Amino acid sequence: MTLDATRFEAELTAALNAKTKPVGSLGRIETLAATIARIQKTLQPRVETCSLTIFAASHGMAASGVSAFSAAVTQQMVLNFLTGGAAANVFAAAIEANVQVVDAGVLGEEIDHPGLIKRRLAPGTKNAIEEPAMTRSQLEQALSAGLEIGQAIDADAACFGEMGIGNTSSAALIAAKILGRAVTDLTGRGTGLDDQALHRKAQLLETAAARTPATIDVKTALAEYGGFEIAMMSGAMIGAAQTGRVVMIDGFIATAAALCAIKLDPDCEAAFVYAHQSAEAGHKLILSALNAAPLLDLDMRLGEGTGALLAFPLVKAAAAMLRDMASFESAGVSGPA
Amino acid sequence: MTLDATRFEAELTAALNAKTKPVGSLGRIETLAATIARIQKTLQPRVETCSLTIFAASHGMAASGVSAFSAAVTQQMVLNFLTGGAAANVFAAAIEANVQVVDAGVLGEEIDHPGLIKRRLAPGTKNAIEEPAMTRSQLEQALSAGLEIGQAIDADAACFGEMGIGNTSSAALIAAKILGRAVTDLTGRGTGLDDQALHRKAQLLETAAARTPATIDVKTALAEYGGFEIAMMSGAMIGAAQTGRVVMIDGFIATAAALCAIKLDPDCEAAFVYAHQSAEAGHKLILSALNAAPLLDLDMRLGEGTGALLAFPLVKAAAAMLRDMASFESAGVSGPA
Repeated sequence: MTLDATRFEAELTAALNAKTKPVGSLGRIETLAATIARIQKTLQPRVETCSLTIFAASHGMAASGVSAFSAAVTQQMVLNFLTGGAAANVFAAAIEANVQVVDAGVLGEEIDHPGLIKRRLAPGTKNAIEEPAMTRSQLEQALSAGLEIGQAIDADAACFGEMGIGNTSSAALIAAKILGRAVTDLTGRGTGLDDQALHRKAQLLETAAARTPATIDVKTALAEYGGFEIAMMSGAMIGAAQTGRVVMIDGFIATAAALCAIKLDPDCEAAFVYAHQSAEAGHKLILSALNAAPLLDLDMRLGEGTGALLAFPLVKAAAAMLRDMASFESAGVSGPA
Repeated sequence: MTLDATRFEAELTAALNAKTKPVGSLGRIETLAATIARIQKTLQPRVETCSLTIFAASHGMAASGVSAFSAAVTQQMVLNFLTGGAAANVFAAAIEANVQVVDAGVLGEEIDHPGLIKRRLAPGTKNAIEEPAMTRSQLEQALSAGLEIGQAIDADAACFGEMGIGNTSSAALIAAKILGRAVTDLTGRGTGLDDQALHRKAQLLETAAARTPATIDVKTALAEYGGFEIAMMSGAMIGAAQTGRVVMIDGFIATAAALCAIKLDPDCEAAFVYAHQSAEAGHKLILSALNAAPLLDLDMRLGEGTGALLAFPLVKAAAAMLRDMASFESAGVSGPA
């Protein structure tokens, strides 16, 4: 650490310990407050506004039957997001978060809606069981579109969500290849596969994984296994981190995107707050590789940024605690004997 | 269940499963929404407003050295609550919750402040290590004052907090005696005792426990071991439950009060939402006896209702989900194959 950084850390610890509470008694809210202080480079942090950006894209793999839902649902859900009916909309409204939806490459007719950010790279990726999901050129376009979207976010906290039938398969493959793990270690039930369908999904993902070496670099992993929404989200996480946002990392797929973002730009990691532990198998494995412990564990597995939105009030409260809470001295309260 | 209750449950399950998400994919938010629906007796629940009531009282036991802080801190913290400087104030402000403070029997000069609800039963309890903390008459006054305060709460969700140097000792003794457990199983570090002080606290609580039989009834436990704030909070939990509020149960001490409330009026339990898992040893044991699993686990051990306040946004979001989220049919989204 530089001298300035050392002094900042000392002042941060002193500020937290001077608050009218037993030292450490707010547990993870204190460590969260410290994280926010470091992101905002102030002992008076403020996290009041929140935005959610949902990246949607279709996956060629969906045609092979990796999901319980049909590929058409991705487009239907984009319309649901745009008309405010999805879980993410409801959770966003509860915390007054702004919602924007990005078409990163959704199968079907192009949607025309004033609320939609159009960054369509193709009507879905190729089927990654058999061939690369996207070209290198498409990947670079996805990453730069994401970076731009992330940099443009005008809120203290940036939540990122995704929608894409088949994308737990992409996330499992990407993370497995980056971390050098067997894809079966990261294969889960997604939207709710039964045992038989889970078995088939695992076989398909092993076929897909066999196309490439056991460990590959992040850009190769994204290009080989998709999807457009995961790549674009990775770029957006980097962009939001660069502009000083608290970046809220949602569940399994968002954490796979976060892993990619960190591999692409290690500096962005300091801006990440892991929001919730997904019920999807494999999430724990990526989190463990990132040495990350999410704030919430509510047995959720929906995506859309729902976990990130639910964790936002904790971030808001943590910042307010460091900023607004009285000290023993200012409140005239006696410390421990 | 009655026929009406059976039908309500069937309609509730159908409503949750019709939402545009894989069945069960919102995990505990779905079970929480169901709890709120049962409390409010509607499939369109609404939890928008929140209040926090902090009960403060002093404990004669504090003079024996069961806490790292001096007894004077209870009154100092009441002033801190009234001037908005405590963690509970800051967390309440973040969710726009109303805060009221109750003097249930704080040592020192009577505080004169327009924001203070005065229900002083005495300037603190007697020292429960040696003698009963309060008389039966004081207990009945505490319970009925609490009931009245709880019934008067005008908010969808009622959070209850406490302040009272020494009150982890009261909570441990009360819960141990009601559950028929050794008090050492519930003795923890409170505000932050070191090993030596924890050892002394454990010895003192064993002395206090030895004054009465291994298992005693709830009113005897409250009268023997106090405090005024715990008894009053029990009454308030019952009152708030009776008037249809979602009752947010905070940490160790509040859960001991909830245990008392349930023993006094089993009907109130249906209104309780357990907010957070305290780091205080003993909380898990009471929760387990109540078959309760808190929503949050943030390694907090402050009390004041801080955990209840942090969990409120989850309750608000859960109600909004059931009320406002689109169904597959209304949104035109295809269900699973």
